[in-house]
Amino acid sequence: MFFDVLGTVVDWRGSIAAEASSFLKRHDASHIDAGAFADAWVGHYDASVEAVRRGRRPFVPLDLLNMENLETCLKEFGLTPSAVPSPELEDLNLAWHRLKPWPDSVEGVSRLKERFIVAPLSDGNTRLLVDMAKHAGLPWDTILGADISEAYKPMPQVYLRACELLGVEPDRAMLVAAHDYDLDAARQCGLKTAYVVRSNAHDPSKAAAVKRLDGWEYMASDLIELAAILK
Amino acid sequence: MFFDVLGTVVDWRGSIAAEASSFLKRHDASHIDAGAFADAWVGHYDASVEAVRRGRRPFVPLDLLNMENLETCLKEFGLTPSAVPSPELEDLNLAWHRLKPWPDSVEGVSRLKERFIVAPLSDGNTRLLVDMAKHAGLPWDTILGADISEAYKPMPQVYLRACELLGVEPDRAMLVAAHDYDLDAARQCGLKTAYVVRSNAHDPSKAAAVKRLDGWEYMASDLIELAAILK
Repeated sequence: MFFDVLGTVVDWRGSIAAEASSFLKRHDASHIDAGAFADAWVGHYDASVEAVRRGRRPFVPLDLLNMENLETCLKEFGLTPSAVPSPELEDLNLAWHRLKPWPDSVEGVSRLKERFIVAPLSDGNTRLLVDMAKHAGLPWDTILGADISEAYKPMPQVYLRACELLGVEPDRAMLVAAHDYDLDAARQCGLKTAYVVRSNAHDPSKAAAVKRLDGWEYMASDLIELAAILK
Repeated sequence: MFFDVLGTVVDWRGSIAAEASSFLKRHDASHIDAGAFADAWVGHYDASVEAVRRGRRPFVPLDLLNMENLETCLKEFGLTPSAVPSPELEDLNLAWHRLKPWPDSVEGVSRLKERFIVAPLSDGNTRLLVDMAKHAGLPWDTILGADISEAYKPMPQVYLRACELLGVEPDRAMLVAAHDYDLDAARQCGLKTAYVVRSNAHDPSKAAAVKRLDGWEYMASDLIELAAILK
């Protein structure tokens, strides 16, 4: 059972807004709205990953893309990245390693772990996901970052390599996600699909991709409900 | 903190002998000594992995090498692999997914996990290690099977790829192992080293490689002692 993470298991926008808020205060920039700053930072995500998906750029881990986007974002809000000590920029970038789970995530994953192998399958790099798991108490059986397949979702090799490493045919695997584009790609690779409704997950990086497809094998309002359905 | 697994964290020879014993009884072959059978099976390990190390054969996962060696072994002991129903052969081969930890392993890894990222770095494939962890309760933060780097120890890319995926310079990583050849290769890649004395680990696959090198950064009689040393 593979899980999308950003938006599905953790609240990226809320977590980043909280860390951006204290960063902006420390740098005399509390006039900048932290929520708008987080939206802008997360909003650059898709375009930067797209360059790798399209082969216009060799694979680089998300930590690096996030740092580039952070610098772009600071400039957009009138700040000068080079004026910020680099350990402080690094620390803000590590906000992605500390994204907070939705309230049901730890319990839901724990219950699903009793019956299934549970592993994140994320655009995040492995270290980002390891730090997040330790920080949040997410009890994954193993972790599959984008740097393992050196590809970003929805590239098919992400899903197929994950199945290969876990020693399962795709139809014996399932992707759990809150994003249609991700589930659709997994389904095209032969995986089963479970849609989790994160109606409160305002997700600026995927605004254009919300098509509300359906036909997923399972649909649940959160991960605890999904565990109950699959019991 | 990376851990060799086969011999260091789990007792492969003892675990395989136990499963071979019940297999041999079920197949009217209880005249065959299960310990000798396990020695022979594990004894083929190094030569089969060596073909991949030397580039004479493309990478294949350990599950496949183990199955080939199992069939060889059955013939050596006068049995006919094709006479055994293939689900039973598969099940015996999965004994490697159920190897039992040494008595200190789960507690030692749990204590080390409080301060460090803990991950197996093994010739075993990822699924083998995931099954083993679930079966034995080994609380790894993530799992790095040989199929991730598509290389076998002591090939340097195994250690270097592990450091890259965990986002650490080699000198900020450590290998914990009961085998000198493994520690020596890790040291050559720049990792720190901790030697765990598994004096009771009769290890037919590595009989020729025991050189009793020293100069490792740390040495402990088991993983609980190692956790105490690194406290």
